[in-house]
Amino acid sequence: MLSFDDNSFLTDTNRGTPMGDLLRRYWIPVLLSEELPEPGCPPVRAQVLGERLVAVRDVSGRLALLQEGCPHRRVSLFFARNEGPDAPDGAPGLRCVYHGWKYDLSGNCIDMPNEPKTSRFKDHIQITAYPAQERGGVIWVYMGPAESQPALPELEWAMVPDAQRFVSKRLQFTNFAQAMEGGIDSSHVSFLHSDAGLWNPDRAQRDTGSLSTGLLQDTAPRFFIEPTDYGFLIGARRQSGPSNYYWRITQWLMPWYTFIPRDADGPIGAHAWVPIDNESCFAFSVSYHPDRPLTSQETNSFRHGGSIHAVVDEETFVPLQRASNNYRIDRVLQSTVSWSGIPGIAMEDVAMQESMGTVVDRTDEHLGSSDAAIVAARRRLIGEARALAGGADSPSGLDPASQRVRSGSAVLPADAESWVDATAEIRAADSRYYANS
Amino acid sequence: MLSFDDNSFLTDTNRGTPMGDLLRRYWIPVLLSEELPEPGCPPVRAQVLGERLVAVRDVSGRLALLQEGCPHRRVSLFFARNEGPDAPDGAPGLRCVYHGWKYDLSGNCIDMPNEPKTSRFKDHIQITAYPAQERGGVIWVYMGPAESQPALPELEWAMVPDAQRFVSKRLQFTNFAQAMEGGIDSSHVSFLHSDAGLWNPDRAQRDTGSLSTGLLQDTAPRFFIEPTDYGFLIGARRQSGPSNYYWRITQWLMPWYTFIPRDADGPIGAHAWVPIDNESCFAFSVSYHPDRPLTSQETNSFRHGGSIHAVVDEETFVPLQRASNNYRIDRVLQSTVSWSGIPGIAMEDVAMQESMGTVVDRTDEHLGSSDAAIVAARRRLIGEARALAGGADSPSGLDPASQRVRSGSAVLPADAESWVDATAEIRAADSRYYANS
Amino acid sequence: MLSFDDNSFLTDTNRGTPMGDLLRRYWIPVLLSEELPEPGCPPVRAQVLGERLVAVRDVSGRLALLQEGCPHRRVSLFFARNEGPDAPDGAPGLRCVYHGWKYDLSGNCIDMPNEPKTSRFKDHIQITAYPAQERGGVIWVYMGPAESQPALPELEWAMVPDAQRFVSKRLQFTNFAQAMEGGIDSSHVSFLHSDAGLWNPDRAQRDTGSLSTGLLQDTAPRFFIEPTDYGFLIGARRQSGPSNYYWRITQWLMPWYTFIPRDADGPIGAHAWVPIDNESCFAFSVSYHPDRPLTSQETNSFRHGGSIHAVVDEETFVPLQRASNNYRIDRVLQSTVSWSGIPGIAMEDVAMQESMGTVVDRTDEHLGSSDAAIVAARRRLIGEARALAGGADSPSGLDPASQRVRSGSAVLPADAESWVDATAEIRAADSRYYANS
Repeated sequence: MLSFDDNSFLTDTNRGTPMGDLLRRYWIPVLLSEELPEPGCPPVRAQVLGERLVAVRDVSGRLALLQEGCPHRRVSLFFARNEGPDAPDGAPGLRCVYHGWKYDLSGNCIDMPNEPKTSRFKDHIQITAYPAQERGGVIWVYMGPAESQPALPELEWAMVPDAQRFVSKRLQFTNFAQAMEGGIDSSHVSFLHSDAGLWNPDRAQRDTGSLSTGLLQDTAPRFFIEPTDYGFLIGARRQSGPSNYYWRITQWLMPWYTFIPRDADGPIGAHAWVPIDNESCFAFSVSYHPDRPLTSQETNSFRHGGSIHAVVDEETFVPLQRASNNYRIDRVLQSTVSWSGIPGIAMEDVAMQESMGTVVDRTDEHLGSSDAAIVAARRRLIGEARALAGGADSPSGLDPASQRVRSGSAVLPADAESWVDATAEIRAADSRYYANS
Repeated sequence: MLSFDDNSFLTDTNRGTPMGDLLRRYWIPVLLSEELPEPGCPPVRAQVLGERLVAVRDVSGRLALLQEGCPHRRVSLFFARNEGPDAPDGAPGLRCVYHGWKYDLSGNCIDMPNEPKTSRFKDHIQITAYPAQERGGVIWVYMGPAESQPALPELEWAMVPDAQRFVSKRLQFTNFAQAMEGGIDSSHVSFLHSDAGLWNPDRAQRDTGSLSTGLLQDTAPRFFIEPTDYGFLIGARRQSGPSNYYWRITQWLMPWYTFIPRDADGPIGAHAWVPIDNESCFAFSVSYHPDRPLTSQETNSFRHGGSIHAVVDEETFVPLQRASNNYRIDRVLQSTVSWSGIPGIAMEDVAMQESMGTVVDRTDEHLGSSDAAIVAARRRLIGEARALAGGADSPSGLDPASQRVRSGSAVLPADAESWVDATAEIRAADSRYYANS
Repeated sequence: MLSFDDNSFLTDTNRGTPMGDLLRRYWIPVLLSEELPEPGCPPVRAQVLGERLVAVRDVSGRLALLQEGCPHRRVSLFFARNEGPDAPDGAPGLRCVYHGWKYDLSGNCIDMPNEPKTSRFKDHIQITAYPAQERGGVIWVYMGPAESQPALPELEWAMVPDAQRFVSKRLQFTNFAQAMEGGIDSSHVSFLHSDAGLWNPDRAQRDTGSLSTGLLQDTAPRFFIEPTDYGFLIGARRQSGPSNYYWRITQWLMPWYTFIPRDADGPIGAHAWVPIDNESCFAFSVSYHPDRPLTSQETNSFRHGGSIHAVVDEETFVPLQRASNNYRIDRVLQSTVSWSGIPGIAMEDVAMQESMGTVVDRTDEHLGSSDAAIVAARRRLIGEARALAGGADSPSGLDPASQRVRSGSAVLPADAESWVDATAEIRAADSRYYANS
């Protein structure tokens, strides 16, 4: 439960708010690389933390996000021309189609052909321009103070070769914090993503899917939070036979990254939850394998909504299963072989989170011991935003070296001294991807 | 005409308002029985007086309306599982699919499988649960103080055998009071529901439909309001030949029931106008015959928008004729054989009422003598709400015995002493339906 | 750039605002004649300057705009019957279908059949009725004080025979001032309406369309504003060879009329930008030839979105190219033969203007020397509205004789003494259309 004020503090990420200022200190995933497929391609609209922008890859391959409205008369630069060597001035840049004003990717107005050649007016025109970079199939933007710009993130999924990774993006009609809380809410896995057959052991039909049996033997895991310099570890401990514990370890990295524990040797799942504005966000969903290329069967499944991915409208990134069609819940399925009746793990989560309202009323929730990680993430974000507003130097989690982590699971003896120490190795990203650093 | 304050007072039915408190003292029709077709069927969403609820028929057949948001993290219980004997705990109840919290129909949290077995957390969790019952093809809910719960209504249409009744439901985009005022506005019948042929006696084409000729000989009836313990009678008196009056008697029962006078020996029409929120309501429309089963011809007609019924979208209950298609007005028809050009009596009313805006500005209307019943109903509702807020014991119309009434029409001698006494018999519901009380 | 207050002052045209009062002193184009095709036809809805009205052509052919809401219970008179000689009272007028109240086109209630014949209630009922007239394929309304009603406009396009004129109407989702500013923004023509082939002289594909070569040799014309009694002239001067200037002269007439310069001997283009409410407007687009009937090829082209016209939804007048489909921008076309990639001149303008937002933030624009006409029009409108609010007698541009003007273009010697004097003849409307005045 949060006070009304704390709930607003946590969820308001517009420019000038403490949370908005905090999040602007990090590189932000905003687009799939394929949305800007090649140098000189058309610009695309991107709203980030409430700011209306256009993303551009100029003819030289340079990336940036620029303010959407041309400062002259405020028309959208979405319609602009991405010009190159064959333009009259031969320079890379974005030219507004209304009166021909042209900007480079640093935000300088470099041409103003509707004013007399002698005019110096253009020298006084500057637009907001945020630096952008590409890594791991994603375009990242930095919207904070120039002097504080950190190194680009080195999350393992962003470092592996492209063939070992699948990234998808979907629009969710909730605040980013609400979506992220779903990503670190480990206890719902035993319910929402189980199926009716598993839940009720007497039923004949079963499909264990990717869920380990450990999840089903103990639906009330005990949660342990281990703070780290980059965020925290969530250890979910379940009984596993008389003398062992089954541990599932979720990673949470500042300010919005989560890694889901994988079972056996399959791909690892990861997310980034990025505010579009205060009432919607993009979920970047990543499946990657640290050791081998994804198989075509895996990729094909992800493309069709398998695992943590969803099938979305190509233009808007809104999933085809949505509130207006009740996420295609199938009540017959729900009463027989599926727990929720909603097809797909991702969409089960979305249905839950969107049904809370766009910004859930956290003054009226009733958290239990299983919600420890949610409480910890809120405290960490609010605390770091307050510290930064109070003059603190720099928030945590900006050092790329600290981001070289994974999630995982393990069966440990009940009398093991420390689950943290005992799982250090399985939580480390593969060092070969950081050879040069 | 109402003052701005009185208009707000009349139309605001949210929890904690005087009008909201008044209406919560009555049983409220909320669903057609067929929306919850059998024990254990999936829950359905229902918004009533501004409160977001889910309606449930549990495996034991018990009915209730529960708050929509699970108190844990506020996800919608619309997605919940309606569990029974084959559930792990074997108990009837609604289980949230997110983390498995389960509620019985009294609102108790009876299972919390994601918390340790030793936890007593669930004993502190209680959700809003309103008792519901079924009668007359309709599910009714009581949302008032438990100690004030009245007996279930005994309106004649709710007491006759099912074969003698047809009930439909449609969503109207206006405040309930506005819809109800249409139901007691007797003088519009001679116009809106007439047809061009009737209005203009020189035209060749005529279709008297179900309208008695009495309505057409005198379009300016004189209205008499006779207060009763349950509401009031509306007597509309028209000349009928030199020495007789034609009386049409509409019944209005607290707080939103109307009975339309029938002609000859056909089915009787009745309505209930129930607030969804302050800007929309459900119109329950009932055609019933007190003496015989409805014929298949009658039922078939009702199903296709005949009489007071409308054809609606199956999911939303919004009529297919709607504002966005101008209610399918046919201007050629309007200029020839139909007065309004809008197909269907119900939709003629809807077109008028929705065109006033969702909450009509009653500070800017000009009521005449024909609006006497509308004035009386407003005064009655406002007066009873004020009295209740001021500490009065109980509003009127709660005694089921008082609800055994009908509408009707009669031709009386002009010198009859009392239209009320002279019509006592035709206004009485059939006593055989109350044999046991 | 305007202050926040001035921007509100300029764009708020509701009743009782200074700008609203100013605009109500002029005849206002509201409908195409074909929307009220014949005497006694059904009424149509029309919102003008924020007021909800219905437009009526009664059986006698008289035109008026009446308030939409019947004063009795506020239902819409859109559904009303347009009655004539075969009505019971034999009088022309609009009868509300709810209770039969009937109004003549001066706003008098002339029948109230649901009240007793002896009632005088109707004598106290009066509705808002604005006089309307027809000229030039358009229906015009006057919504100002009766004693200030001016003569009907005599714009040349409204005076020529019907065969010489094509008028279309489209709904634009911006304030009227923003749309009008597009109409007098002469410098964008060299960019937005050029094509990529023209802009880049090295490309092979070219299509000069209707653009004169003068526009392309000099993209930074110098603007001269010449105030007149009816508005002002905009002279755009471009170099044209070593010793000549190419002049394009746009006419702006109070309060919202523009005439586009024509090239060679084709039809002249003209617009009227009329507020529906503060966030939308109707653009009336006119192509007319002062000397000859339009050819069927011309008319056919206009009908399919050629020149300044757009293809619109028949019911709503919203263009089929719209924000939700990005105005059907074709990025391949944009990178090859078209400057904007948006099909059609009109839709290029709409895309720009709607992308600014419904009411552009004029506190955050950066106007250059090419925006002189925009600055002048704002000053003129704001100045005249202030003067009128301050008690001035009458705004400018109301004398029809002053409206007999045209736009045009000319090549003048660089040493000509006065571009205004030198173009007097080509700017005059043809006197034969004013023979009777």
